[in-house]
Amino acid sequence: MAIEAGQATEGGQGRIRLGMVGGGQGAFIGAVHRIAARLDDRYELVAGALSSDAERARASGAALGLDPERAYASFAEMAEREAARPDGIEAVSIVTPNHMHAPAARAFLQAGIHVICDKPLSVSVAEAEELVALGKTSGRIFALTHNYTGYPMIREARALVAAGELGTVRLVQMNYAQDWLSERAELSGSKQAEWRTDPERSGAGGAIGDIGTHAFNLGAFVSGLRPEALLAELTSFVEGRRLDDDVRVLLRYRGGAKGLLWASQVAVGNENTLRLQVYGTKGGLEWSQEDPNHLWFTRLGEPKQLLTRNGAGTGTASKRVSRVPPGHPEGYLEGFANIYGEVAEAILAARSGAVPDAAVTFPSVEDGLAGMRFIAAAVASSKAGSVWTPVG
Amino acid sequence: MAIEAGQATEGGQGRIRLGMVGGGQGAFIGAVHRIAARLDDRYELVAGALSSDAERARASGAALGLDPERAYASFAEMAEREAARPDGIEAVSIVTPNHMHAPAARAFLQAGIHVICDKPLSVSVAEAEELVALGKTSGRIFALTHNYTGYPMIREARALVAAGELGTVRLVQMNYAQDWLSERAELSGSKQAEWRTDPERSGAGGAIGDIGTHAFNLGAFVSGLRPEALLAELTSFVEGRRLDDDVRVLLRYRGGAKGLLWASQVAVGNENTLRLQVYGTKGGLEWSQEDPNHLWFTRLGEPKQLLTRNGAGTGTASKRVSRVPPGHPEGYLEGFANIYGEVAEAILAARSGAVPDAAVTFPSVEDGLAGMRFIAAAVASSKAGSVWTPVG
Amino acid sequence: MAIEAGQATEGGQGRIRLGMVGGGQGAFIGAVHRIAARLDDRYELVAGALSSDAERARASGAALGLDPERAYASFAEMAEREAARPDGIEAVSIVTPNHMHAPAARAFLQAGIHVICDKPLSVSVAEAEELVALGKTSGRIFALTHNYTGYPMIREARALVAAGELGTVRLVQMNYAQDWLSERAELSGSKQAEWRTDPERSGAGGAIGDIGTHAFNLGAFVSGLRPEALLAELTSFVEGRRLDDDVRVLLRYRGGAKGLLWASQVAVGNENTLRLQVYGTKGGLEWSQEDPNHLWFTRLGEPKQLLTRNGAGTGTASKRVSRVPPGHPEGYLEGFANIYGEVAEAILAARSGAVPDAAVTFPSVEDGLAGMRFIAAAVASSKAGSVWTPVG
Amino acid sequence: MAIEAGQATEGGQGRIRLGMVGGGQGAFIGAVHRIAARLDDRYELVAGALSSDAERARASGAALGLDPERAYASFAEMAEREAARPDGIEAVSIVTPNHMHAPAARAFLQAGIHVICDKPLSVSVAEAEELVALGKTSGRIFALTHNYTGYPMIREARALVAAGELGTVRLVQMNYAQDWLSERAELSGSKQAEWRTDPERSGAGGAIGDIGTHAFNLGAFVSGLRPEALLAELTSFVEGRRLDDDVRVLLRYRGGAKGLLWASQVAVGNENTLRLQVYGTKGGLEWSQEDPNHLWFTRLGEPKQLLTRNGAGTGTASKRVSRVPPGHPEGYLEGFANIYGEVAEAILAARSGAVPDAAVTFPSVEDGLAGMRFIAAAVASSKAGSVWTPVG
Repeated sequence: MAIEAGQATEGGQGRIRLGMVGGGQGAFIGAVHRIAARLDDRYELVAGALSSDAERARASGAALGLDPERAYASFAEMAEREAARPDGIEAVSIVTPNHMHAPAARAFLQAGIHVICDKPLSVSVAEAEELVALGKTSGRIFALTHNYTGYPMIREARALVAAGELGTVRLVQMNYAQDWLSERAELSGSKQAEWRTDPERSGAGGAIGDIGTHAFNLGAFVSGLRPEALLAELTSFVEGRRLDDDVRVLLRYRGGAKGLLWASQVAVGNENTLRLQVYGTKGGLEWSQEDPNHLWFTRLGEPKQLLTRNGAGTGTASKRVSRVPPGHPEGYLEGFANIYGEVAEAILAARSGAVPDAAVTFPSVEDGLAGMRFIAAAVASSKAGSVWTPVG
Repeated sequence: MAIEAGQATEGGQGRIRLGMVGGGQGAFIGAVHRIAARLDDRYELVAGALSSDAERARASGAALGLDPERAYASFAEMAEREAARPDGIEAVSIVTPNHMHAPAARAFLQAGIHVICDKPLSVSVAEAEELVALGKTSGRIFALTHNYTGYPMIREARALVAAGELGTVRLVQMNYAQDWLSERAELSGSKQAEWRTDPERSGAGGAIGDIGTHAFNLGAFVSGLRPEALLAELTSFVEGRRLDDDVRVLLRYRGGAKGLLWASQVAVGNENTLRLQVYGTKGGLEWSQEDPNHLWFTRLGEPKQLLTRNGAGTGTASKRVSRVPPGHPEGYLEGFANIYGEVAEAILAARSGAVPDAAVTFPSVEDGLAGMRFIAAAVASSKAGSVWTPVG
Repeated sequence: MAIEAGQATEGGQGRIRLGMVGGGQGAFIGAVHRIAARLDDRYELVAGALSSDAERARASGAALGLDPERAYASFAEMAEREAARPDGIEAVSIVTPNHMHAPAARAFLQAGIHVICDKPLSVSVAEAEELVALGKTSGRIFALTHNYTGYPMIREARALVAAGELGTVRLVQMNYAQDWLSERAELSGSKQAEWRTDPERSGAGGAIGDIGTHAFNLGAFVSGLRPEALLAELTSFVEGRRLDDDVRVLLRYRGGAKGLLWASQVAVGNENTLRLQVYGTKGGLEWSQEDPNHLWFTRLGEPKQLLTRNGAGTGTASKRVSRVPPGHPEGYLEGFANIYGEVAEAILAARSGAVPDAAVTFPSVEDGLAGMRFIAAAVASSKAGSVWTPVG
Repeated sequence: MAIEAGQATEGGQGRIRLGMVGGGQGAFIGAVHRIAARLDDRYELVAGALSSDAERARASGAALGLDPERAYASFAEMAEREAARPDGIEAVSIVTPNHMHAPAARAFLQAGIHVICDKPLSVSVAEAEELVALGKTSGRIFALTHNYTGYPMIREARALVAAGELGTVRLVQMNYAQDWLSERAELSGSKQAEWRTDPERSGAGGAIGDIGTHAFNLGAFVSGLRPEALLAELTSFVEGRRLDDDVRVLLRYRGGAKGLLWASQVAVGNENTLRLQVYGTKGGLEWSQEDPNHLWFTRLGEPKQLLTRNGAGTGTASKRVSRVPPGHPEGYLEGFANIYGEVAEAILAARSGAVPDAAVTFPSVEDGLAGMRFIAAAVASSKAGSVWTPVG
């Protein structure tokens, strides 16, 4: 059972010293990142610039038990000082609103610190391209938390496609439906809703950046396909909203496959209905994030199979990121932790100059750039009246 | 229980004398129509032009116990002779491949006989427009068997939308996925595959005509919305296939709602995954044809409800087309029979000059024309490179 | 596709002349039997003793279009007169409350008329034994409508067990949960509730006779196992109720397998949750009546498979009782109709002296006796304080 | 969102110093306990007697980064030395096979150290009674990891029952089905299978102790009911197995409710199908461990509702043990962590002499005794031929 292998990697090899930018009191995703970092005991949080508000930064650091000296009021200061300490952080998690991703990432890469950054990568393609370049020259690891790729059955799906079990992929269907922005929550005091619907902090995409990129990335991760062109219609259904809350995209992948992506934040009755379907000449796959331990797999002309995480018929790609036996569900946090776990393996390899395990497949800065190009093309297509638009 | 009301309508009022065009030995949908007609004992099949092959027409009639005199070799002869008999048919079911729908329908309308026609209505918009006109002048009933509208929970969904329970509808999502044409079945002796992939017999649309129109019609039936424009991409994934086997359509409805339709016959692992989702400002609905006795209904901010056919919280729109108690599933044939049942009520009303029950809502020739305009616009949009195209 | 075979059996061979006892206005199951008889066009209802109330019998006959002469006020008269007519009924459906089953069945068997009887067979083991004997001496067909055995995927399950795909069966789990008697519906004017909770009309068993026998029969039908002994606890949860509304039974089958049966009419939130699970040394099966077109099948150590009616990997046992393609659900009425269809085949074989198709497997009078013994043993066990009690 | 409250409890208040008995290399549940302890940053593992094999104990400690001095070879030595250190452990997790639970718990309670013990509590009722007594006199916290009670929707279910939303409970149905012991895995080198089928290490119960007690405990936790008597049949289906691998139990609760429990380790196709159904006079609940974020709730006569973790219509009992938004699944480890979290709150309260939050509801040593009485009564009932046997 994978858990036995897992044990060997708890704590003993020396935890990675981690810092965090953003994620102070009142934030959501910061706590998720911390749990993900902690779950397999591969990291120790030792520094933070948890808020751009100095008082909140201090209080948040205290609540988390940080050394007060290392609860910084700005990420720039943190990058500089931590780089100078012999026990300084080796990696940083950036969990701010989108517009701060690139400036922070730049500062830490330049300070020689590995970066784990929330998605989307930035607020513009130009910023993203700069980060890709900087990632290369810095020689540092740059991981992007498209966390859904960490689900074991998504790994299984990717492995089945890569092994040719579906034949040639024809269709990739990607849905991500929510309902939490069905009304104008940004006016009701929801911090989450406020910045996500604000172009200054989110960038040019609303739903497409917040959830559409997740769906797009997931489709690419599993199918291995890259888009050639897309055609999109972005809609703001809620009156007065400045960014899209619904998006529908037709995709043409290189090689002839087609994609369809629908993301919405006004689909009443949906919480986080992220669903992926991939169909090829010989087989089909269906997966849903709200039931993540299962994967439907059908070979053409045979009965449908329900594969279960760590269960009969699954392979190493999913088993290696599995902790508990089949039938005991793992969830969102475990998937997120799998990204952190793989980054940890890469950092440990980097420490010793070794090559990381080829099975390590966390999303990279290049995936982040691909996501930004997807957003930019979709926004451009929609503004032009839904015309085919090259992607990157 | 609805079954009690149902009893009153069995047989006793005099069954309607029915004829059939197509549906001879080797056909599929003819037998379905016959079961649908028989299920509630409202019809008696007494004549047929069951095949254009005279010998097969005769043999098929014999197998069904028809009077040999009334097993005709051509629909034209049948229309003429039956119209002349005092005990001639009152209604005819047309269940041929698409290209024969319009010629047959024309003949029977002109002979004063009510028409129940399989979908799509015709192979061109022009034919469809002519039938609408003829429908009006003839004064005869013209029903189109978009049978999925006969499912009780689809009736419930329509009633919920009409009652304003969803608020203003924003989104209509329509999927219809199959996998039976994933390989080139039309070369392997499947009669069904042969004519459905043949433009001469199917018209300009493949998947879009065969299953896309069903999905489109269902969305319109439930939401009450009419499209203003669409943008489509039709694909023939299987090499050598002459018609589309996959279609993706963006829809703009009058009034500002948006639609998304995906229909595919190459989605491996799907049998008849016809799924409808409707989202409004106040609520959302989700329904799937493979689980037709259930309807998910969510009011914004409240828990999801699972409504069941004939069960708690459902209304007369669904109960009146329900036969058995909740938890005893009704299926495809019962939904089909509901169309026949409503046509029967309309015919009985016509017999006596009465106005049919306002709750009678079977799809009409106008719905057939709307479907043909949908197909034509989608084909045109796709050919033009996926551009917004007005619908009718 | 099975539908093509099906066509050959519509109408043409001459419909079987059918009578009905019970099932007049206000009844439930009578209408179900009539639809089941009609669905495949194998029967024609020509006579009835539809109510013991003469006026209702007459009115019910008229509503169904019966010849007034053949709308009898008593089953005895009907048996006598129909037996004397050259065009008299060949078979009768008995759909009365339980206490009338045996007297009516006796009368028709003695008149040389085939019997299709609702379950449970009778109100006592003695009556049931007499009917078995009479069934033999009469040479007539005696079918019992344990209709759930008519579901195609139940046939598939039975065939898988018979073919050894499960190895040696160890466990049979049978549940049937409803909630319609959670309150004292028998005092609120529900005719169905009245007679089903009345020992004079239902016999000694309440829930155990009404639904427990269905579950028991289904387990036996699929597993092929016969019980040696049982231990039961019957409860009347609703105050003042005279018969059990909940029953839990441990079963020991001949050969060492074990069974567990729970039936309840007070399980709030359940409509007709009839569920069967069979586990053997090599495989397992799970089926649920509310989702009847699916069957879960797992071979030990392999992924779960979801078999679908008429779909990939299914065999002739289920395909031969299937009408429409996979993904188009069939339901309760179709399953019921399969019993009628098989009885029709047996009657046609009897007409011509031929041996009926070996695949014909409708429940018989012996199955009815087994059910009565099950009820009697459960009632006795419970009264004795839940002790192991031999079954028959 | 609950996550915000959660933040305040990460790390900052000082983590609890934790030791572990058992859980060395090759074990399963030890790693689960460690993740559960770590997830919310409330504990720090600082000592262990991880194996009774000295070499393995040392190596396991090193792998986990323990100070070599605190990687003990026996729990007795660990209890003694840790109690003597100023920075000694405050709590210990006991994760050995069952027969070591009581000796280890005794040692730590006597040393004044809080105990978190895996289930079942012991291998005999006498041992369990002694631990209850010792728990009282020691004044230490004694938590039992019936981890399924930590699932948020189980908390929701318990709160609904307690609030009277179901009326008077009538029925509690408990299933726990697995298939991993369908063959004689104990002979194939599975350590897990070995000790779980060995009476010396497991006690008198096999499946009933391993999974039956979980199901029993869950039923009691949610319904609030205590059993008066039970009747059981335990079976060893696999030849040569020394303990039961299947158990079926009828339960009579105090006050008149009835229970039915089925646990099996030979139900092919089941991984961890732990399912709970509770039915009362006014409502019903259904929950399944493999889909733990959902809870079906039906009020008599109303539509079924699907409650989701942290979603619309749920209350504080579930929200307070929830970390992420609805639609992002939490799983087995999070539920387990909720037990550890509540124990942490109790320990922190004990540190300061405060009364723990009344909402803290982790299973206690008394629940462990109830479980042992359940096992003992079931074994006795079965041996006596399935007779009603008082519980405790």
